[in-house]
Amino acid sequence: MGLKALFLNCTLKYSPEISNTRVLIDKAVKLFEELGVESEVVRVTDYNVKFGVSSDEGEGDQWPLILEKIKACDILIIGSPIWFGVRSSVTQLVLERLDGTYEEYDKETGQFPLYGKVAGVVITGNEDGAHNIAANTLFNLTHLGCTVPPNVDSYWVGPAGPGPSYIDAGGERHLYTNKTIRYMVNNLAFFAKLLKDNPIPTNINKLYEDAVKESD
Amino acid sequence: MGLKALFLNCTLKYSPEISNTRVLIDKAVKLFEELGVESEVVRVTDYNVKFGVSSDEGEGDQWPLILEKIKACDILIIGSPIWFGVRSSVTQLVLERLDGTYEEYDKETGQFPLYGKVAGVVITGNEDGAHNIAANTLFNLTHLGCTVPPNVDSYWVGPAGPGPSYIDAGGERHLYTNKTIRYMVNNLAFFAKLLKDNPIPTNINKLYEDAVKESD
Amino acid sequence: MGLKALFLNCTLKYSPEISNTRVLIDKAVKLFEELGVESEVVRVTDYNVKFGVSSDEGEGDQWPLILEKIKACDILIIGSPIWFGVRSSVTQLVLERLDGTYEEYDKETGQFPLYGKVAGVVITGNEDGAHNIAANTLFNLTHLGCTVPPNVDSYWVGPAGPGPSYIDAGGERHLYTNKTIRYMVNNLAFFAKLLKDNPIPTNINKLYEDAVKESD
Amino acid sequence: MGLKALFLNCTLKYSPEISNTRVLIDKAVKLFEELGVESEVVRVTDYNVKFGVSSDEGEGDQWPLILEKIKACDILIIGSPIWFGVRSSVTQLVLERLDGTYEEYDKETGQFPLYGKVAGVVITGNEDGAHNIAANTLFNLTHLGCTVPPNVDSYWVGPAGPGPSYIDAGGERHLYTNKTIRYMVNNLAFFAKLLKDNPIPTNINKLYEDAVKESD
Repeated sequence: MGLKALFLNCTLKYSPEISNTRVLIDKAVKLFEELGVESEVVRVTDYNVKFGVSSDEGEGDQWPLILEKIKACDILIIGSPIWFGVRSSVTQLVLERLDGTYEEYDKETGQFPLYGKVAGVVITGNEDGAHNIAANTLFNLTHLGCTVPPNVDSYWVGPAGPGPSYIDAGGERHLYTNKTIRYMVNNLAFFAKLLKDNPIPTNINKLYEDAVKESD
Repeated sequence: MGLKALFLNCTLKYSPEISNTRVLIDKAVKLFEELGVESEVVRVTDYNVKFGVSSDEGEGDQWPLILEKIKACDILIIGSPIWFGVRSSVTQLVLERLDGTYEEYDKETGQFPLYGKVAGVVITGNEDGAHNIAANTLFNLTHLGCTVPPNVDSYWVGPAGPGPSYIDAGGERHLYTNKTIRYMVNNLAFFAKLLKDNPIPTNINKLYEDAVKESD
Repeated sequence: MGLKALFLNCTLKYSPEISNTRVLIDKAVKLFEELGVESEVVRVTDYNVKFGVSSDEGEGDQWPLILEKIKACDILIIGSPIWFGVRSSVTQLVLERLDGTYEEYDKETGQFPLYGKVAGVVITGNEDGAHNIAANTLFNLTHLGCTVPPNVDSYWVGPAGPGPSYIDAGGERHLYTNKTIRYMVNNLAFFAKLLKDNPIPTNINKLYEDAVKESD
Repeated sequence: MGLKALFLNCTLKYSPEISNTRVLIDKAVKLFEELGVESEVVRVTDYNVKFGVSSDEGEGDQWPLILEKIKACDILIIGSPIWFGVRSSVTQLVLERLDGTYEEYDKETGQFPLYGKVAGVVITGNEDGAHNIAANTLFNLTHLGCTVPPNVDSYWVGPAGPGPSYIDAGGERHLYTNKTIRYMVNNLAFFAKLLKDNPIPTNINKLYEDAVKESD
């Protein structure tokens, strides 16, 4: 059906170090392929992304290369490791840079560039924090314009406290993670197609004007 | 279009005390009415809801009365005050009780009772914590089967530290809240209609079986 | 040394149902005993605690009975289960009711009733969310006047997704939990004694007056 | 009394751009000076800090220069802006790098390098999220060994939604922020002195061995 999924792998590791989150992402890529959805996986640390909240932070900033891919996708999935119970600094960096898209709204409708896209998250960590990451990341993406279907988070963590990571712990055979990655892929694919066929009609500019009338 | 919106007002206050959150909810009710969406507002503390995680905690438990309304609605909106930076105990109580719906899945598809519904949140507090509440509450609702469209949180808070609440502070004329309540209502109405016309086809039972095959 | 520890078990279960959190609490009680610290464990659902944010919500409200115990202890430990990735509604209810203590400050120093006490948390859940609960609960307690020593959270969770709880999963033999409960007990006992011997001298009333001078 | 406070300003901005968080930090510096506490302020983006979770990520990594200052201080204060309702990527980067200190424990006592230090946070943002940042950051620091006294978070945010930042909004005259910065400075100074005079005696190695005996 011509849908494109983009995974942003927000591991702290630089290539070619092995990323646990990537291994779980690859499961989703395979499942998307079975549904005819094409995937691309970007490791953010392969790019020189500057700190900031605009879409281009100038000299040497490679965020614009990633942003272009984001704008071109139908399905956006953030892959994050857990550190200190929350999302990685690289994940947070990606969100901060997406702040710049608020400035690039459609002149007619006021919709931001991410309107009409659907979003999911894939998380791995050796311990506790997945709910926190999924909640904040998916919520932030709805602010930016994404739609969040049911059951679009898939995560793996071990029991309480530090321990082996996803690959070493044999997480690839963990039933909960293997079922949720399927729910995620199927629901994302359905909603991406649905929104492509039925664009969100909301005119934000018009609603804003209405709001101005009853505000100080 | 025959859509029904249900607001669960999770204020800590017992009737007939005035609820700030209710005043913001009433703005949404009026906007829904203009779109032909019928609303019902339930103040949870009007009911005797027991602590627990099943759909019926026995003698004297009035949660089943609320749950019936939830199952009958198309749009579910949680209204929460902020206390200590997070959602109210009443809001958390509602989520805990919704845990019971996981047991009432459709035999054929495995979908839970909240599948196909769309969700939003309305939040008031005199200070900081709205993002936290919106993120956790919307995420929890996606786990239960709800879809979260873009921009379906509307909140009001004052500046740093304790201070007057929504009504006393004149929050009813705050532009940010007045615009986001409009985005929320319009996007919820669009998605509710869209999902009514296009039910989510995902067969969770089937995907679960697939997952079992590659798991321990 | 005459120190008293109070555990508030915020399980959703009513007596005499078995509470997983209670089993972990009992480990701490035994360790405190070895250090000569006396413990009391209160299951909050044994009391009729009304929703609200004052220290006495009137007719039938039994919060004052719990609050009395809180004021008399040196060490306050909140025991919470995890539901939907965050603290239980009963835990949140306890925090909301503690809001009332802000009103009972010392006329001279402005210090709240919880100033000088030390705080910790004990958490069990079958899955993910312990960091979120520990962070929010300990932080809220510092706002109320408590001191948080290093390593005063002890928790148990199983791997990703639903599964057996602490008792059934054999969590009582989980090394991480067994070590952190020891760090917690020892650090709480040390700090409780230290603060008893060296009361915090900060005069909040005086500092407030200084702040007024450079504010609007 | 020879105490040293270190502020890590985790603004996203590169020098010499003006940092709102820095202006609030400067208030604390002045207050510390009145108490005889010496302060140093480090803007993290002035250094080339690599992503990672060790204390030295090799070639070009300037984290070791910052870590040296952290180890030498008595009082550690994280200054963070709010972005998307949570702490900045630079703040998260600092925490991730502190993960490396777990490896540098004292051979005798097992205590980590941050044991015995006291911690606080200073936060500015144009909207909502301060509680979330304070809770997570202070909690993470207790895991690393820091003690958190009562009322050691000071923050400024404006009312709901985007708006002018601390400086432009005249936040410097906001009473709540001006009083909490005083509570913070006084309590941090008291506890830093107290812990310098009364080092935490907990032997983590010994407690760990005890835990091993009753674990799998």
